[in-house]
Parts: sequence; structure tokens; C-alpha cells
Amino acid sequence: MKADVKYVMQLNKKPRQRKKDGVFVVEGPKMFTELPSFLRMKTFVSESFLKEETHKQLLAGIPFETVKDSVFEQMSDTKTPQGILAVARQLSYEMGDLLGRENSRKPLLLVLDKIQDPGNLGTMIRAGEAAGVTGILMNRETVDIYNPKVIRSTMGALYRVPFAYTDNLVETLKELKENGMRVFAAHLAGMHVYDKVDYTGASAFLIGNEANGLSDEIAAMADCYIKIPMCGKVESLNAAVAASVLLFEAARQRRWA
Amino acid sequence: MKADVKYVMQLNKKPRQRKKDGVFVVEGPKMFTELPSFLRMKTFVSESFLKEETHKQLLAGIPFETVKDSVFEQMSDTKTPQGILAVARQLSYEMGDLLGRENSRKPLLLVLDKIQDPGNLGTMIRAGEAAGVTGILMNRETVDIYNPKVIRSTMGALYRVPFAYTDNLVETLKELKENGMRVFAAHLAGMHVYDKVDYTGASAFLIGNEANGLSDEIAAMADCYIKIPMCGKVESLNAAVAASVLLFEAARQRRWA
Repeated sequence: MKADVKYVMQLNKKPRQRKKDGVFVVEGPKMFTELPSFLRMKTFVSESFLKEETHKQLLAGIPFETVKDSVFEQMSDTKTPQGILAVARQLSYEMGDLLGRENSRKPLLLVLDKIQDPGNLGTMIRAGEAAGVTGILMNRETVDIYNPKVIRSTMGALYRVPFAYTDNLVETLKELKENGMRVFAAHLAGMHVYDKVDYTGASAFLIGNEANGLSDEIAAMADCYIKIPMCGKVESLNAAVAASVLLFEAARQRRWA
Repeated sequence: MKADVKYVMQLNKKPRQRKKDGVFVVEGPKMFTELPSFLRMKTFVSESFLKEETHKQLLAGIPFETVKDSVFEQMSDTKTPQGILAVARQLSYEMGDLLGRENSRKPLLLVLDKIQDPGNLGTMIRAGEAAGVTGILMNRETVDIYNPKVIRSTMGALYRVPFAYTDNLVETLKELKENGMRVFAAHLAGMHVYDKVDYTGASAFLIGNEANGLSDEIAAMADCYIKIPMCGKVESLNAAVAASVLLFEAARQRRWA
């Protein structure tokens, strides 16, 4: 039992531990309920969580372990623990999944270069699903998608949007381009206003690090540099906002195409 | 000195103290440098901050007080303090400022109903400036704009976008409508797809609380309910993402109008 507590704490804090074991921690009733059952390995609930009738229903047919509230607080990654968490198997996708081979849409990829803020990544996954991305591709320098803050801010989209990390993003982009993908870089020095470019074909948007933007070698892979015109004295947009504006423009074009 | 430390800590933590004294705390070189000098009241720097030559230049002609690094850590709202902060006077705007009376643009208002997350508010101010909003209007239940986390995430836009809190948002919206403002509510049950509606006239977008959306009485003030079509199983968008998608659609229409 004590070992379990320590293990969950480690999983919350250490990306390497999560990667090594191929697992992650899902917390809160919403994310727990939406977790596909084949991924669920072990469920923990707090004593006070069990006191509510609706909570019991949520656990119907699911084996779980009860811990004291004080113990649950230690296991939880949040300041106000919601009383339920599960250790779950990580998801696994192939490139074909990211390209949406199972549906008739043209591929729409969000490609992330060194995104560091967990909230930004989670928000992009959530907005990405809503805008109809077929997948999210990241380099290894991007924050771990199984970071508890990322998971929370996806609001469940984590389970539904295919994603992958690549060791060599330049190489992966090269392969995608050889297969007909058009690559667009959101760039402050972009030549093309984003809403005058056609995204109805297979398209990938490159989004760079919050502070430094796209690295040169990644930006160099773009077929087209686009910019979002900005009023005032704003130097740049929040990465998740920039990604959302571009993806929903693509969605708009695809809707009326 | 000790009193100063305690006071800055209070200002960081207590919205009421900030409001009572009409001041707020600005932290970090970027936000400090962009702070209009007439708002600056008292500046504190850490000893190690002063060791860098560029930092000294940043302080040229500005009176400041030096404190030990350990003391600065107490005053700072962040985990990794950047060594400079100032107590500053709050900004103050009238409704005419929010309507952009000083420029020729048609008013473009972002109206916030009970936004709770500081990062969301800050991101909306930053995106709002970039999209060309003339002002941001909030009800009292919205998080305090002088919350340190809000300030940080505006990246300086706080100083440049006129904003106001209103005690009675329904009444204020009524007055705006009588003066020709068209009010659009982002609503999951919206009838109109957001990109098929005209925002080139005086327009206000209503954005609701992260968990509960718009309150009924505020939503009832809308002239037009709009929706952002969503793919997948996403229930809603992050509030800052929704606001950004709408505001940049308005900016797009105004750019090509």
C-alpha cells in the first residue's frame, strides 16, 4: 500500500518513470470516467469520495482500492484532490493514425517544436480535436503529454486525438512532405496572411516554443510561412492561441469547401 | 523595510488590499520596463539582480531599493524570482476609452462574465490587443486583473488595452446596445455559425465562465447567439481559445472589409 502511494507520486512527478513503465496517472471523475477501460490498471479512491452515492455508481463493476483522505492528498497532483485516480497504460499510435487513415478527411497535423508549458499543450490538444486535427506530432523537447497538468487541460481530448513524439522531427517532416503534406510555419516574419492561404489539402502547422518560436532547422522545413496580423504592440501570441486561430481557419475552409 | 516586504506580499495575495490602495505589483524586467513611468511608485531589486550590467542600465534614472535575495524571494509571487519588482498605481479608464473613441475603428469589445482562471484572463487581454479590441469589460465576479498571474500572462498588453469592471453588467450592456452596439454570445446552443456573421459594425463578444458558461441573465442580453462548430467529442473550448477564435474572425473581416 505504502509502495503504491510512493509509486503514484513518482509517476506524477517523473516523466522518465512514466516512460519507463509505459503508464500515467488519470485524476478526477471526468478524466476517470472517460478513460477507455482497456487502459485502466489500478484505481484509488479516497474515503470521503465513497460517501457520495453518485460516486459509487461511477465505480460500478470497477475494482478499486480505498485510501484515507490524507493519503489520497499525497497521491494527488492537485491542491484540491477530487478523490479518484487511476494508474493507466499509455496510448500508442502509428503515423497512419495521425494522418487520419480511418476517415475520409484530408490530414490536418499540428506539429509542435519544444512547447514547454503543460497548460498550452493540453489546450492545444483540446482545441485541436475541436478543429478536426487528425493528429499531433511533437519533438522530444516538447513537454511530456502525460504530465498531470497537460492531462487536466485536455478535458478528455487526450484519449481521442492521435499523437506521437519523434526523435528526429526534421526527418519525419521530410517524409510527410514526400507524401504530399504541405507544411505551414506560423512565423512572425511570415509573408502570407494566414487567412489567404489554402488549407483544404493535406496540411501541417508548425508551432514553436513559447519564448523562442520555431528553431531554424524546423522552420526551414516549411513550404509556406504564414503570419497572423496583429494590432497594437503585441510581440507574439500565446502558442495555444496562435495554434487555435490557424486550426480553426483550416476548419472554416474545410467546412465551406 | 520589513513593512515594505509585508506590504508587497499582501498586495500579491489580496485583491482587496490592491483595490483599497489602488495599486498593484509589477514583476520581472519585461513588465517593469514596459510599465508607464507615471504609474511607477516604488521599485525593489535583489542584490544579485544588480550584478548584471544590463540590469543597471534598465534602472537608469529610476530610484530603487535593494534587498537581499532571500528577502526578494519572499516578496516575489513566482518560484524563480527575476529580481525586480515595482509597486504601481492602478490604471483607470472610462467607458469612452473602451469604445476606442480616440481612433477611427468601430468599437470591438470583449465582455467577460465570471472568468476565474488568471491565465485565461491574461491570455485574452494579450490576444485581444493583437486582434484589435478597443476594450475589455468585466463583471465583478471576474478574477482581479491585477492578480500577479494575470499580469504575467498579458505580456505587457495589460498596459495598453482599456478595461473596466462593472457592478451591473446587464445594465451596462443595455446602455451599450442603446448606443448601437451589437452583442454576440458565444453559446454552445448558438444558431449562427460564427464565421457567417458580420462583425464589421460596433460589436461585443460575451464570453462566459470556464465551467458554467454564460449566466442566463447575461446571455439574455445578446442580439445574436453564435457557435464555433466543433469536431470530435469536445464539449467546449477553453475560454481564451473561444475568445481568440471569435476576435480574430472579427479582425479578419475588418481587415478585408
